[in-house]
Amino acid sequence: MDAVTSLDQQFRFLLEADQLKGVLRQSPLADGSRRENSAEHSWHIALMAVVLAGHAPPGTDLSRVITMLLLHDLVEIDAGDLSVYADEAAQSRQATAEAAAARRLFGLLPAGQATELRALWEEFEQRRTPEARFARALDRLQPMLVNYHVGGGTWRAPGITAPQVQAKADLVADGSATLGEYAHALITRAVEHGYLAAGGSAG
Amino acid sequence: MDAVTSLDQQFRFLLEADQLKGVLRQSPLADGSRRENSAEHSWHIALMAVVLAGHAPPGTDLSRVITMLLLHDLVEIDAGDLSVYADEAAQSRQATAEAAAARRLFGLLPAGQATELRALWEEFEQRRTPEARFARALDRLQPMLVNYHVGGGTWRAPGITAPQVQAKADLVADGSATLGEYAHALITRAVEHGYLAAGGSAG
Repeated sequence: MDAVTSLDQQFRFLLEADQLKGVLRQSPLADGSRRENSAEHSWHIALMAVVLAGHAPPGTDLSRVITMLLLHDLVEIDAGDLSVYADEAAQSRQATAEAAAARRLFGLLPAGQATELRALWEEFEQRRTPEARFARALDRLQPMLVNYHVGGGTWRAPGITAPQVQAKADLVADGSATLGEYAHALITRAVEHGYLAAGGSAG
Repeated sequence: MDAVTSLDQQFRFLLEADQLKGVLRQSPLADGSRRENSAEHSWHIALMAVVLAGHAPPGTDLSRVITMLLLHDLVEIDAGDLSVYADEAAQSRQATAEAAAARRLFGLLPAGQATELRALWEEFEQRRTPEARFARALDRLQPMLVNYHVGGGTWRAPGITAPQVQAKADLVADGSATLGEYAHALITRAVEHGYLAAGGSAG
Protein backbone atom coordinates (compact mmCIF):
# COMPACT_ATOMS: atom_id res chain seq x y z
CA MET A 1 0.00 0.00 0.00
CA ASP A 2 1.19 3.50 -0.82
CA ALA A 3 1.26 6.11 1.94
CA VAL A 4 -1.48 8.75 1.71
CA THR A 5 0.08 11.88 0.20
CA SER A 6 -1.09 15.50 0.44
CA LEU A 7 -2.29 15.19 -3.14
CA ASP A 8 -4.40 12.13 -2.22
CA GLN A 9 -5.99 14.15 0.59
CA GLN A 10 -6.64 17.09 -1.74
CA PHE A 11 -8.32 14.89 -4.36
CA ARG A 12 -10.38 13.20 -1.65
CA PHE A 13 -11.61 16.66 -0.61
CA LEU A 14 -12.32 17.66 -4.23
CA LEU A 15 -14.35 14.50 -4.86
CA GLU A 16 -16.30 15.09 -1.66
CA ALA A 17 -16.90 18.70 -2.78
CA ASP A 18 -18.53 17.33 -5.94
CA GLN A 19 -21.63 16.63 -3.84
CA LEU A 20 -22.41 20.35 -3.73
CA LYS A 21 -23.79 19.86 -7.27
CA GLY A 22 -26.61 17.86 -5.66
CA VAL A 23 -27.64 20.44 -3.01
CA LEU A 24 -30.71 22.30 -4.25
CA ARG A 25 -31.44 25.92 -3.32
CA GLN A 26 -34.84 27.59 -3.24
CA SER A 27 -33.91 29.99 -6.08
CA PRO A 28 -34.77 29.20 -9.69
CA LEU A 29 -32.53 29.49 -12.73
CA ALA A 30 -33.00 32.72 -14.69
CA ASP A 31 -35.05 30.79 -17.30
CA GLY A 32 -37.33 29.49 -14.54
CA SER A 33 -36.85 25.87 -15.68
CA ARG A 34 -35.72 24.39 -12.34
CA ARG A 35 -34.17 25.24 -8.96
CA GLU A 36 -30.45 25.96 -9.01
CA ASN A 37 -27.92 23.93 -7.06
CA SER A 38 -25.33 25.37 -4.71
CA ALA A 39 -22.35 24.52 -6.94
CA GLU A 40 -23.65 26.46 -9.95
CA HIS A 41 -24.80 29.26 -7.61
CA SER A 42 -21.23 29.46 -6.24
CA TRP A 43 -19.88 29.73 -9.78
CA HIS A 44 -22.38 32.47 -10.62
CA ILE A 45 -21.50 34.68 -7.65
CA ALA A 46 -17.76 34.15 -8.18
CA LEU A 47 -18.32 35.39 -11.75
CA MET A 48 -20.30 38.32 -10.30
CA ALA A 49 -17.26 39.17 -8.17
CA VAL A 50 -15.12 39.34 -11.32
CA VAL A 51 -17.61 41.46 -13.26
CA LEU A 52 -18.67 43.75 -10.39
CA ALA A 53 -15.19 44.16 -8.86
CA GLY A 54 -15.38 47.91 -9.49
CA HIS A 55 -18.23 48.14 -6.95
CA ALA A 56 -16.17 46.73 -4.06
CA PRO A 57 -14.88 49.30 -1.56
CA PRO A 58 -11.37 50.55 -2.46
CA GLY A 59 -8.64 48.23 -1.17
CA THR A 60 -10.81 45.07 -1.18
CA ASP A 61 -8.71 41.99 -2.02
CA LEU A 62 -10.79 40.47 -4.80
CA SER A 63 -8.91 37.22 -4.88
CA ARG A 64 -9.87 36.57 -1.22
CA VAL A 65 -13.48 37.45 -2.08
CA ILE A 66 -13.56 34.92 -4.91
CA THR A 67 -11.94 32.18 -2.84
CA MET A 68 -14.51 32.74 -0.10
CA LEU A 69 -17.34 32.54 -2.62
CA LEU A 70 -16.02 29.27 -4.06
CA LEU A 71 -15.87 27.75 -0.55
CA HIS A 72 -18.76 29.36 1.26
CA ASP A 73 -21.49 26.81 0.54
CA LEU A 74 -19.46 23.60 0.93
CA VAL A 75 -20.86 23.10 4.44
CA GLU A 76 -24.28 22.56 2.83
CA ILE A 77 -23.06 19.13 1.72
CA ASP A 78 -23.68 18.01 5.31
CA ALA A 79 -26.01 20.73 6.60
CA GLY A 80 -28.26 21.37 3.56
CA ASP A 81 -29.47 24.75 2.32
CA LEU A 82 -31.70 26.88 4.54
CA SER A 83 -33.99 29.65 3.29
CA VAL A 84 -32.66 33.12 4.13
CA TYR A 85 -36.16 33.78 5.54
CA ALA A 86 -36.02 30.90 8.09
CA ASP A 87 -36.76 31.79 11.73
CA GLU A 88 -34.06 32.34 14.35
CA ALA A 89 -34.31 28.89 15.94
CA ALA A 90 -33.83 27.21 12.55
CA GLN A 91 -30.91 29.54 11.79
CA SER A 92 -29.25 28.70 15.09
CA ARG A 93 -29.57 24.93 14.46
CA GLN A 94 -28.18 25.52 10.96
CA ALA A 95 -25.15 27.41 12.32
CA THR A 96 -24.28 24.47 14.61
CA ALA A 97 -24.65 21.95 11.77
CA GLU A 98 -22.51 24.12 9.46
CA ALA A 99 -19.71 24.45 12.02
CA ALA A 100 -19.57 20.64 12.34
CA ALA A 101 -19.63 20.32 8.54
CA ALA A 102 -16.72 22.76 8.22
CA ARG A 103 -14.65 20.70 10.68
CA ARG A 104 -15.35 17.48 8.78
CA LEU A 105 -14.99 18.77 5.22
CA PHE A 106 -11.98 21.08 5.53
CA GLY A 107 -10.50 18.42 7.84
CA LEU A 108 -10.09 16.16 4.79
CA LEU A 109 -7.31 18.48 3.55
CA PRO A 110 -3.65 18.51 4.65
CA ALA A 111 -3.51 20.20 8.08
CA GLY A 112 -2.14 23.63 7.10
CA GLN A 113 -4.54 24.02 4.21
CA ALA A 114 -7.47 22.79 6.31
CA THR A 115 -6.80 25.56 8.84
CA GLU A 116 -6.38 28.22 6.18
CA LEU A 117 -9.53 27.43 4.19
CA ARG A 118 -11.68 26.89 7.27
CA ALA A 119 -10.55 30.32 8.53
CA LEU A 120 -11.67 31.86 5.22
CA TRP A 121 -15.07 30.18 5.58
CA GLU A 122 -15.36 31.59 9.12
CA GLU A 123 -14.36 35.04 7.89
CA PHE A 124 -17.21 34.88 5.35
CA GLU A 125 -19.67 33.81 8.04
CA GLN A 126 -18.61 36.55 10.48
CA ARG A 127 -19.02 39.30 7.89
CA ARG A 128 -16.54 41.68 9.51
CA THR A 129 -13.83 42.25 6.88
CA PRO A 130 -14.49 44.25 3.67
CA GLU A 131 -13.87 41.03 1.69
CA ALA A 132 -16.48 39.07 3.65
CA ARG A 133 -18.98 41.93 3.40
CA PHE A 134 -18.58 42.24 -0.35
CA ALA A 135 -18.80 38.45 -0.77
CA ARG A 136 -21.98 38.31 1.33
CA ALA A 137 -23.42 41.22 -0.67
CA LEU A 138 -23.04 39.24 -3.89
CA ASP A 139 -24.51 36.12 -2.27
CA ARG A 140 -27.63 38.13 -1.36
CA LEU A 141 -27.84 40.09 -4.61
CA GLN A 142 -27.77 37.11 -7.01
CA PRO A 143 -31.17 35.64 -6.04
CA MET A 144 -32.71 39.15 -6.16
CA LEU A 145 -31.59 39.56 -9.77
CA VAL A 146 -32.99 36.19 -10.70
CA ASN A 147 -36.26 36.70 -8.79
CA TYR A 148 -36.78 40.02 -10.54
CA HIS A 149 -35.95 38.49 -13.91
CA VAL A 150 -38.43 35.59 -13.53
CA GLY A 151 -41.12 37.93 -12.15
CA GLY A 152 -41.19 36.72 -8.55
CA GLY A 153 -39.37 33.44 -7.91
CA THR A 154 -38.84 32.85 -4.19
CA TRP A 155 -40.46 36.24 -3.45
CA ARG A 156 -43.76 34.46 -4.18
CA ALA A 157 -43.33 32.12 -1.17
CA PRO A 158 -46.10 32.50 1.44
CA GLY A 159 -45.54 35.41 3.83
CA ILE A 160 -42.63 37.09 1.98
CA THR A 161 -43.07 40.86 1.69
CA ALA A 162 -40.91 43.81 0.70
CA PRO A 163 -39.62 44.71 4.20
CA GLN A 164 -37.96 41.26 4.55
CA VAL A 165 -36.31 41.62 1.16
CA GLN A 166 -35.26 45.18 2.03
CA ALA A 167 -33.43 43.79 5.07
CA LYS A 168 -31.42 41.60 2.65
CA ALA A 169 -30.76 44.64 0.45
CA ASP A 170 -29.36 46.38 3.56
CA LEU A 171 -26.79 43.55 3.73
CA VAL A 172 -25.95 44.21 0.08
CA ALA A 173 -25.46 47.91 0.91
CA ASP A 174 -23.19 46.92 3.80
CA GLY A 175 -20.81 45.30 1.28
CA SER A 176 -21.15 47.81 -1.57
CA ALA A 177 -22.93 51.17 -1.54
CA THR A 178 -23.71 51.20 -5.27
CA LEU A 179 -24.90 47.58 -5.37
CA GLY A 180 -27.05 48.25 -2.29
CA GLU A 181 -28.71 51.19 -4.03
CA TYR A 182 -29.34 49.01 -7.07
CA ALA A 183 -30.87 46.27 -4.88
CA HIS A 184 -33.22 48.72 -3.16
CA ALA A 185 -34.33 50.16 -6.50
CA LEU A 186 -34.94 46.61 -7.78
CA ILE A 187 -37.22 45.88 -4.83
CA THR A 188 -39.20 49.07 -5.41
CA ARG A 189 -39.70 48.13 -9.07
CA ALA A 190 -40.59 44.54 -8.08
CA VAL A 191 -43.39 45.82 -5.83
CA GLU A 192 -44.62 48.16 -8.61
CA HIS A 193 -44.74 45.25 -11.07
CA GLY A 194 -46.50 42.96 -8.55
CA TYR A 195 -43.55 40.50 -8.35
CA LEU A 196 -43.32 41.04 -4.58
CA ALA A 197 -46.00 41.89 -1.98
CA ALA A 198 -45.59 45.38 -0.45
CA GLY A 199 -46.49 44.20 3.09
CA GLY A 200 -45.63 46.09 6.29
CA SER A 201 -47.02 49.60 6.70
CA ALA A 202 -47.31 49.93 2.95
CA GLY A 203 -49.36 46.69 2.77
CA MET B 1 -36.68 55.96 -19.84
CA ASP B 2 -33.43 55.71 -17.90
CA ALA B 3 -30.19 55.56 -19.86
CA VAL B 4 -28.50 52.15 -19.85
CA THR B 5 -25.75 52.27 -17.23
CA SER B 6 -22.60 50.13 -16.95
CA LEU B 7 -24.29 48.29 -14.11
CA ASP B 8 -27.29 47.50 -16.33
CA GLN B 9 -24.90 46.07 -18.94
CA GLN B 10 -23.09 44.01 -16.31
CA PHE B 11 -26.32 42.55 -14.94
CA ARG B 12 -27.51 41.79 -18.48
CA PHE B 13 -24.27 39.83 -19.01
CA LEU B 14 -24.64 38.02 -15.67
CA LEU B 15 -28.22 36.98 -16.47
CA GLU B 16 -27.13 35.76 -19.89
CA ALA B 17 -24.28 33.83 -18.19
CA ASP B 18 -26.91 32.00 -16.12
CA GLN B 19 -27.63 29.85 -19.19
CA LEU B 20 -24.34 28.01 -18.66
CA LYS B 21 -26.22 26.05 -15.96
CA GLY B 22 -28.20 24.45 -18.78
CA VAL B 23 -25.23 23.33 -20.94
CA LEU B 24 -24.62 19.62 -20.31
CA ARG B 25 -21.17 18.05 -20.56
CA GLN B 26 -20.39 14.42 -21.32
CA SER B 27 -18.84 13.87 -17.86
CA PRO B 28 -20.91 12.47 -14.99
CA LEU B 29 -21.08 13.73 -11.40
CA ALA B 30 -18.83 11.83 -8.99
CA ASP B 31 -21.89 9.92 -7.69
CA GLY B 32 -22.75 8.88 -11.27
CA SER B 33 -26.33 10.17 -10.89
CA ARG B 34 -26.37 12.45 -13.96
CA ARG B 35 -24.17 14.42 -16.39
CA GLU B 36 -22.66 17.61 -15.01
CA ASN B 37 -23.34 21.02 -16.49
CA SER B 38 -20.69 23.54 -17.49
CA ALA B 39 -21.49 26.02 -14.69
CA GLU B 40 -20.94 23.51 -11.88
CA HIS B 41 -17.90 22.14 -13.75
CA SER B 42 -16.46 25.69 -13.85
CA TRP B 43 -17.01 26.01 -10.09
CA HIS B 44 -15.33 22.67 -9.47
CA ILE B 45 -12.17 23.49 -11.40
CA ALA B 46 -11.95 26.97 -9.85
CA LEU B 47 -12.06 25.22 -6.46
CA MET B 48 -9.36 22.84 -7.73
CA ALA B 49 -7.20 25.87 -8.54
CA VAL B 50 -7.54 27.06 -4.92
CA VAL B 51 -6.76 23.65 -3.43
CA LEU B 52 -4.01 22.64 -5.87
CA ALA B 53 -2.34 26.07 -6.09
CA GLY B 54 0.87 24.58 -4.69
CA HIS B 55 1.21 22.48 -7.87
CA ALA B 56 1.29 25.48 -10.21
CA PRO B 57 4.74 26.48 -11.53
CA PRO B 58 6.43 29.11 -9.31
CA GLY B 59 5.31 32.65 -10.16
CA THR B 60 1.90 31.62 -11.57
CA ASP B 61 -0.72 34.32 -10.86
CA LEU B 62 -3.46 32.21 -9.31
CA SER B 63 -6.05 34.95 -9.41
CA ARG B 64 -5.74 35.12 -13.22
CA VAL B 65 -6.01 31.32 -13.36
CA ILE B 66 -9.25 31.36 -11.37
CA THR B 67 -10.75 34.20 -13.41
CA MET B 68 -9.97 32.29 -16.63
CA LEU B 69 -11.60 29.16 -15.23
CA LEU B 70 -14.75 31.06 -14.27
CA LEU B 71 -15.01 32.48 -17.80
CA HIS B 72 -13.63 29.74 -19.99
CA ASP B 73 -16.83 27.85 -20.78
CA LEU B 74 -19.21 30.81 -21.27
CA VAL B 75 -18.88 30.50 -25.05
CA GLU B 76 -20.67 27.14 -24.77
CA ILE B 77 -23.90 29.07 -24.17
CA ASP B 78 -23.95 29.69 -27.92
CA ALA B 79 -21.56 27.00 -29.20
CA GLY B 80 -22.45 24.02 -26.96
CA ASP B 81 -20.01 21.55 -25.41
CA LEU B 82 -17.87 19.38 -27.66
CA SER B 83 -16.25 16.10 -26.59
CA VAL B 84 -12.47 16.43 -26.12
CA TYR B 85 -12.24 13.35 -28.35
CA ALA B 86 -14.04 14.96 -31.33
CA ASP B 87 -12.25 14.86 -34.70
CA GLU B 88 -10.29 17.79 -36.15
CA ALA B 89 -13.03 19.00 -38.48
CA ALA B 90 -15.51 19.17 -35.62
CA GLN B 91 -12.95 20.96 -33.44
CA SER B 92 -12.31 23.54 -36.15
CA ARG B 93 -16.05 24.26 -36.56
CA GLN B 94 -16.28 24.54 -32.78
CA ALA B 95 -13.43 27.06 -32.63
CA THR B 96 -15.23 29.30 -35.16
CA ALA B 97 -18.50 29.07 -33.24
CA GLU B 98 -16.76 29.84 -29.95
CA ALA B 99 -15.01 32.92 -31.34
CA ALA B 100 -18.40 34.30 -32.47
CA ALA B 101 -19.88 33.46 -29.07
CA ALA B 102 -17.06 35.30 -27.30
CA ARG B 103 -17.72 38.42 -29.40
CA ARG B 104 -21.44 38.34 -28.63
CA LEU B 105 -21.28 37.43 -24.92
CA PHE B 106 -18.36 39.57 -23.74
CA GLY B 107 -19.74 42.30 -26.00
CA LEU B 108 -22.69 42.66 -23.62
CA LEU B 109 -20.31 44.21 -21.07
CA PRO B 110 -19.10 47.84 -20.92
CA ALA B 111 -16.44 48.24 -23.62
CA GLY B 112 -13.28 48.23 -21.48
CA GLN B 113 -14.37 45.21 -19.50
CA ALA B 114 -15.52 43.38 -22.64
CA THR B 115 -12.02 43.73 -24.11
CA GLU B 116 -10.30 42.67 -20.89
CA LEU B 117 -12.38 39.54 -20.24
CA ARG B 118 -12.40 38.45 -23.88
CA ALA B 119 -8.59 38.73 -23.87
CA LEU B 120 -8.47 36.45 -20.82
CA TRP B 121 -10.68 33.91 -22.61
CA GLU B 122 -8.34 34.04 -25.62
CA GLU B 123 -5.32 33.61 -23.38
CA PHE B 124 -6.91 30.43 -21.97
CA GLU B 125 -7.63 29.12 -25.48
CA GLN B 126 -4.11 29.83 -26.74
CA ARG B 127 -2.47 27.98 -23.83
CA ARG B 128 0.79 29.92 -24.01
CA THR B 129 1.14 31.62 -20.60
CA PRO B 130 1.81 29.63 -17.39
CA GLU B 131 -1.62 30.73 -16.12
CA ALA B 132 -3.41 29.40 -19.20
CA ARG B 133 -1.44 26.15 -19.09
CA PHE B 134 -2.23 25.55 -15.44
CA ALA B 135 -5.91 26.42 -16.00
CA ARG B 136 -6.11 24.03 -18.96
CA ALA B 137 -4.39 21.32 -16.91
CA LEU B 138 -7.14 21.52 -14.28
CA ASP B 139 -9.83 21.53 -16.96
CA ARG B 140 -8.42 18.25 -18.31
CA LEU B 141 -7.69 16.68 -14.92
CA GLN B 142 -11.15 17.09 -13.39
CA PRO B 143 -13.00 14.64 -15.70
CA MET B 144 -10.16 12.11 -15.24
CA LEU B 145 -10.64 12.17 -11.48
CA VAL B 146 -14.37 11.71 -11.85
CA ASN B 147 -14.07 8.99 -14.51
CA TYR B 148 -11.66 7.07 -12.30
CA HIS B 149 -13.95 7.51 -9.29
CA VAL B 150 -17.06 6.21 -11.10
CA GLY B 151 -15.10 3.33 -12.67
CA GLY B 152 -15.10 4.50 -16.29
CA GLY B 153 -17.52 7.33 -17.08
CA THR B 154 -16.75 8.89 -20.46
CA TRP B 155 -13.77 6.50 -20.86
CA ARG B 156 -16.40 3.83 -21.66
CA ALA B 157 -17.51 5.67 -24.82
CA PRO B 158 -16.99 3.61 -27.99
CA GLY B 159 -13.44 3.79 -29.33
CA ILE B 160 -11.81 5.53 -26.34
CA THR B 161 -8.52 3.88 -25.32
CA ALA B 162 -5.61 4.74 -23.03
CA PRO B 163 -3.39 6.47 -25.65
CA GLN B 164 -6.08 9.13 -26.25
CA VAL B 165 -6.43 9.75 -22.54
CA GLN B 166 -2.63 9.82 -22.17
CA ALA B 167 -2.54 12.65 -24.73
CA LYS B 168 -4.86 14.62 -22.37
CA ALA B 169 -2.58 13.77 -19.43
CA ASP B 170 0.31 15.25 -21.45
CA LEU B 171 -1.65 18.53 -21.46
CA VAL B 172 -1.99 18.23 -17.68
CA ALA B 173 1.79 17.74 -17.43
CA ASP B 174 2.30 20.82 -19.61
CA GLY B 175 0.58 22.92 -16.91
CA SER B 176 1.92 21.16 -13.82
CA ALA B 177 4.61 18.48 -13.62
CA THR B 178 3.29 16.87 -10.42
CA LEU B 179 -0.35 16.87 -11.55
CA GLY B 180 0.73 15.42 -14.91
CA GLU B 181 2.51 12.57 -13.13
CA TYR B 182 -0.59 11.95 -11.06
CA ALA B 183 -2.79 11.92 -14.17
CA HIS B 184 -0.53 9.39 -15.94
CA ALA B 185 -0.50 7.13 -12.86
CA LEU B 186 -4.30 7.36 -12.69
CA ILE B 187 -4.58 6.19 -16.30
CA THR B 188 -2.27 3.23 -15.65
CA ARG B 189 -4.40 2.20 -12.66
CA ALA B 190 -7.62 2.73 -14.68
CA VAL B 191 -6.36 0.30 -17.33
CA GLU B 192 -5.37 -2.23 -14.62
CA HIS B 193 -8.84 -2.03 -13.08
CA GLY B 194 -10.55 -2.33 -16.48
CA TYR B 195 -12.09 1.19 -16.32
CA LEU B 196 -10.35 2.13 -19.59
CA ALA B 197 -9.38 0.00 -22.63
CA ALA B 198 -5.60 -0.32 -23.09
CA GLY B 199 -5.78 0.05 -26.89
CA GLY B 200 -2.82 0.95 -29.12
CA SER B 201 0.18 -1.39 -29.12
CA ALA B 202 -0.81 -2.67 -25.68
CA GLY B 203 -4.34 -3.50 -26.92
